[in-house]
Amino acid sequence: MSKIRIGIVGHGNIGRGVERAITQNPDTELVAVFTRRQPGSIQLLTPQAAVKSIADAKEYQDKIDVMILCGGSATDLPEQGPHFATMFNTVDSYDTHARIPEYCARIDAAAKAAGKTSVISVGWDPGLFSMLRMLSGAMLPEGKDYTFWGKGVSQGHSDAIRRVKGVKNGIQYTIPIESAVDSVRRGDSPQLSTREKHLRECFVVAEPEADQEQISQAIKNMPNYFADYDTIIHFINEAELKQNHSQMPHGGFVFRTGATGTGNENQHIIEFSLKLDSNPEFTANVMVAYARAAYRMNQEGICGAKTVFDVPLSYLSARSNLDLIKDLL
Amino acid sequence: MSKIRIGIVGHGNIGRGVERAITQNPDTELVAVFTRRQPGSIQLLTPQAAVKSIADAKEYQDKIDVMILCGGSATDLPEQGPHFATMFNTVDSYDTHARIPEYCARIDAAAKAAGKTSVISVGWDPGLFSMLRMLSGAMLPEGKDYTFWGKGVSQGHSDAIRRVKGVKNGIQYTIPIESAVDSVRRGDSPQLSTREKHLRECFVVAEPEADQEQISQAIKNMPNYFADYDTIIHFINEAELKQNHSQMPHGGFVFRTGATGTGNENQHIIEFSLKLDSNPEFTANVMVAYARAAYRMNQEGICGAKTVFDVPLSYLSARSNLDLIKDLL
Repeated sequence: MSKIRIGIVGHGNIGRGVERAITQNPDTELVAVFTRRQPGSIQLLTPQAAVKSIADAKEYQDKIDVMILCGGSATDLPEQGPHFATMFNTVDSYDTHARIPEYCARIDAAAKAAGKTSVISVGWDPGLFSMLRMLSGAMLPEGKDYTFWGKGVSQGHSDAIRRVKGVKNGIQYTIPIESAVDSVRRGDSPQLSTREKHLRECFVVAEPEADQEQISQAIKNMPNYFADYDTIIHFINEAELKQNHSQMPHGGFVFRTGATGTGNENQHIIEFSLKLDSNPEFTANVMVAYARAAYRMNQEGICGAKTVFDVPLSYLSARSNLDLIKDLL
Repeated sequence: MSKIRIGIVGHGNIGRGVERAITQNPDTELVAVFTRRQPGSIQLLTPQAAVKSIADAKEYQDKIDVMILCGGSATDLPEQGPHFATMFNTVDSYDTHARIPEYCARIDAAAKAAGKTSVISVGWDPGLFSMLRMLSGAMLPEGKDYTFWGKGVSQGHSDAIRRVKGVKNGIQYTIPIESAVDSVRRGDSPQLSTREKHLRECFVVAEPEADQEQISQAIKNMPNYFADYDTIIHFINEAELKQNHSQMPHGGFVFRTGATGTGNENQHIIEFSLKLDSNPEFTANVMVAYARAAYRMNQEGICGAKTVFDVPLSYLSARSNLDLIKDLL
């Protein structure tokens, strides 16, 4: 059986994760990685795959079945998404939430015109968490949703810390407040403010001359990022930061609590949780499963932009439908 | 907008649950309940719906969009499933696991010949749990699955108790062993025997003259049902049984633990759990969501037998795709 031929655009954390994920999925193979860097500067784990300049991708239209776009949502994907959708089936992890409808429309137009299939906003949130929110809402129409994130590194908040005057380096962990999670899990259906759901813990390396109290205040009062939360700040040195905070763990919880019965007397609690040692590697694994789905949908003539809500689950698995029914149903 | 017109076959616990579930889903309406009992003996919560003999169902082919089959898997569904699939789109909760492929093939032939759509084996296991096993297996190809059930009433084991000589009545709870669940949740990837995963707790009402020790031994040594488990037996009276054991709670856990990374150095844990006050009412809610999907797939010309693996998630929701993307993605 011929394998699904994969290309990777961007060789950062997620791109490297996709390369590893392909080795776990024997029905896929890596054909090439496309980069804006000097191709010669990148060493792959996959000896038979090529490293090429991103500008050369167009020459691979007959050699690649699905292109996995591993760039960021801020500047890479808004440009690369619609561009690659004119040439390839694609999968991306676009996560700028407010702009997903607009992004989806642009990809849809490009992919449909080219007869290609693009699955957008894939990963765990957006992605698996979205699916669980949707599913559990359909199962319990009268209920309440809760999503908690963490414990994990928030890239956006870490960047925000590093922009504070006097900060040399730093990292931020989003931490779900255990008593709030427990209350939801017990079925209390609490009303929770932003401050009651998560706290923010920062590990900051200050410049030698900097005033730590001033840095703390600047972080804690930063609107949008920190002002609405309880924030804990630790000052550490660069060596400690490197040694203890170089991993990228993440995860979280999706809950729905709802009721049924003539007088809504029966309560039900649905919980989904992830504990991930490596956020980018898990995201990459999800993207490879959706690459399989994008390929199959395209083979069946289903074109345009799709989300996790549109893809039948069996398209994600390398196993046959009968196997799935026998073993997992 | 016209509503999806639902029929119910069988007015037991699940059938009554479906009637209640329809009241939570404003895009659906109950047209009629079909029963083998005297129609006059059944009082519905839905005054405008009819109660009819099961033999009259054929007259409703133009009045009902989806028939929800609420009979049991042992004798009702093997006969009713293929029969109703020749006349209606259907949803059922067929759960005799070993026979699902054969059942699926019979329904598929009947439904395809009639241009109808049947979603089979819907509920939470088979159903949501199956979906989570499949999904998490696709996301973590190198990993291990665990399913725990309970705490909840097992109908099959309760029936088995009641067949023991000297037993007047009884109920059996399947209970997941907490230390095993915790070990999986921590990521220990334990090897667990049947006995290490679940224990069985029985509440038994003995006949006045019966030998309780003999009953205990007969239950504990019953092959398939109890012999491979640690079983706790309590003797109670009929009044206690009625007062404390008339609810039908259930639930359970699906886990997948797996690894990624060049040397599989990063571990990931996916957990899904349900805590249900009413097993039949929750099952009914899932069936109504799949009735919506069956209707829509049929409208789009997708016919035959389908499982939860075949249905795009958005088909389960009453909300528009754009709404889902904006609110839940």
